[in-house]
Amino acid sequence: MSKPGYIYLVGAGPGDPELLTLKAARLLDRADVVVYDRLVSEDILDLVNPFAERIYVGKSTGRHSLKQSEINTLLVHLAHSHQHIVRLKGGDPYIFGRGGEEAEHLSLHEIPFEVVPGITAAAGCMAKLNLPLTHRGLATGVRFVTGHMQADAMPTHDWRSLADPNTTLAIYMGVKTMPLIAGKLMEHGLSGNTPAIIIENGATPEQRHFQTTLDHLCTDLDRMHVNPPCMIVIGRVLSLADRLSLPATRYMVDDTDQSISVLSDKALHYAKTA
Amino acid sequence: MSKPGYIYLVGAGPGDPELLTLKAARLLDRADVVVYDRLVSEDILDLVNPFAERIYVGKSTGRHSLKQSEINTLLVHLAHSHQHIVRLKGGDPYIFGRGGEEAEHLSLHEIPFEVVPGITAAAGCMAKLNLPLTHRGLATGVRFVTGHMQADAMPTHDWRSLADPNTTLAIYMGVKTMPLIAGKLMEHGLSGNTPAIIIENGATPEQRHFQTTLDHLCTDLDRMHVNPPCMIVIGRVLSLADRLSLPATRYMVDDTDQSISVLSDKALHYAKTA
Repeated sequence: MSKPGYIYLVGAGPGDPELLTLKAARLLDRADVVVYDRLVSEDILDLVNPFAERIYVGKSTGRHSLKQSEINTLLVHLAHSHQHIVRLKGGDPYIFGRGGEEAEHLSLHEIPFEVVPGITAAAGCMAKLNLPLTHRGLATGVRFVTGHMQADAMPTHDWRSLADPNTTLAIYMGVKTMPLIAGKLMEHGLSGNTPAIIIENGATPEQRHFQTTLDHLCTDLDRMHVNPPCMIVIGRVLSLADRLSLPATRYMVDDTDQSISVLSDKALHYAKTA
Repeated sequence: MSKPGYIYLVGAGPGDPELLTLKAARLLDRADVVVYDRLVSEDILDLVNPFAERIYVGKSTGRHSLKQSEINTLLVHLAHSHQHIVRLKGGDPYIFGRGGEEAEHLSLHEIPFEVVPGITAAAGCMAKLNLPLTHRGLATGVRFVTGHMQADAMPTHDWRSLADPNTTLAIYMGVKTMPLIAGKLMEHGLSGNTPAIIIENGATPEQRHFQTTLDHLCTDLDRMHVNPPCMIVIGRVLSLADRLSLPATRYMVDDTDQSISVLSDKALHYAKTA
């Protein structure tokens, strides 16, 4: 068997193509084949060279998508037919990207690979709102957890550990399980008054965000008809919102509800140019 | 007073210039002035356009560096003399980068600004070693904390919360306080057998890394003469090291000590080409 190709597990960042790394952009430009999933936007795919084969592997409702084991098998297969393979994932491949599973499979099959980190969603979404993840006196650290259910079981977290008021908590894929998560956090001592923010379609032109508090999170998720992809951030650091965000360019109050900020950037852009 | 300039608080990523975002590179190319600190490498500064003024603000031993309040004042001052100001920081400005403090000051002085996230050190260092930060069955989340002392006081963390075996713990600036941190983690229930890794000069050609366990962390930090910048990662996810890292290209056993991997990438490159 001939020498296998080289696989790059590449993070595409949170959505904005400008937040790709120089390395990711270079690899997309040189790829023979790009294997990508749903969270990779069209704008990012525009950076792929036109001669590269593109393989969509999911996952979006109603559209065929591959299981993780099938993606693993596909990558090994491609390594034996192509030289320069890019596996492109939203965010960072190694933070809830299941990149570790692909890497394990590639190692097992002795396929050479390399990981190119990407801006993870929490960092991308919060930066766009000018809101820090850590801040002296408000957050000594930051923590990323997933709200995703495995095999229909609720996420099992050390709730007492998660309910730390000095740490900013960013919850990925938490829309469905938020009622459980919010309840558990309060039960384990995190104050219902803790500021929270819901960020839908973060770091894309469709970004919408809603400021709320832990005890109102679930009601607001429901009331605002929030859909994935969605990032939920909880922590005292969000109390900086009034001082750090730029009301003139970032916020617009909508009288139809009580939310502080409800217009997406796209809507705001439209409102300004109309 | 004329309209102030625009300030970009930009993350330079972990060290490798290829890990800058496209946006960061574009902004450096267009900057009138770049204010940078020690963790920004020469290779990254090469991306700054040659006509831009460069201002070094610290912080390295023996070289003059500005206090945070002086940097804040400088930025406001520059906004009144320049149009396009880049404040460049290692890693991500909003994860232990004190970017929030600069943003607060700029907001107070009504200077328009924007935050451009960067790859944070933990993600950059671990990706370079092929090691994920989260992984099914091993780590349901990841947590970034600082070991940095404030006003000579030991870091005050919720130790019980930090000692969560299901979360990968990445400690920034922890070389000095590691004896306290490791002790507290074990005292609060984290097993001494928990795998750990020490990464010095992460994501640069000088990167060195040492695999160890929580109970041997401090001895190893000392024995290997580790200096900042250094990232310490603790968690079960590191048990993947044997399967995920590529021994042929990543590791080389040095007989002079018992460490599994001791050669920097630069040394390894030298060893291969010699």
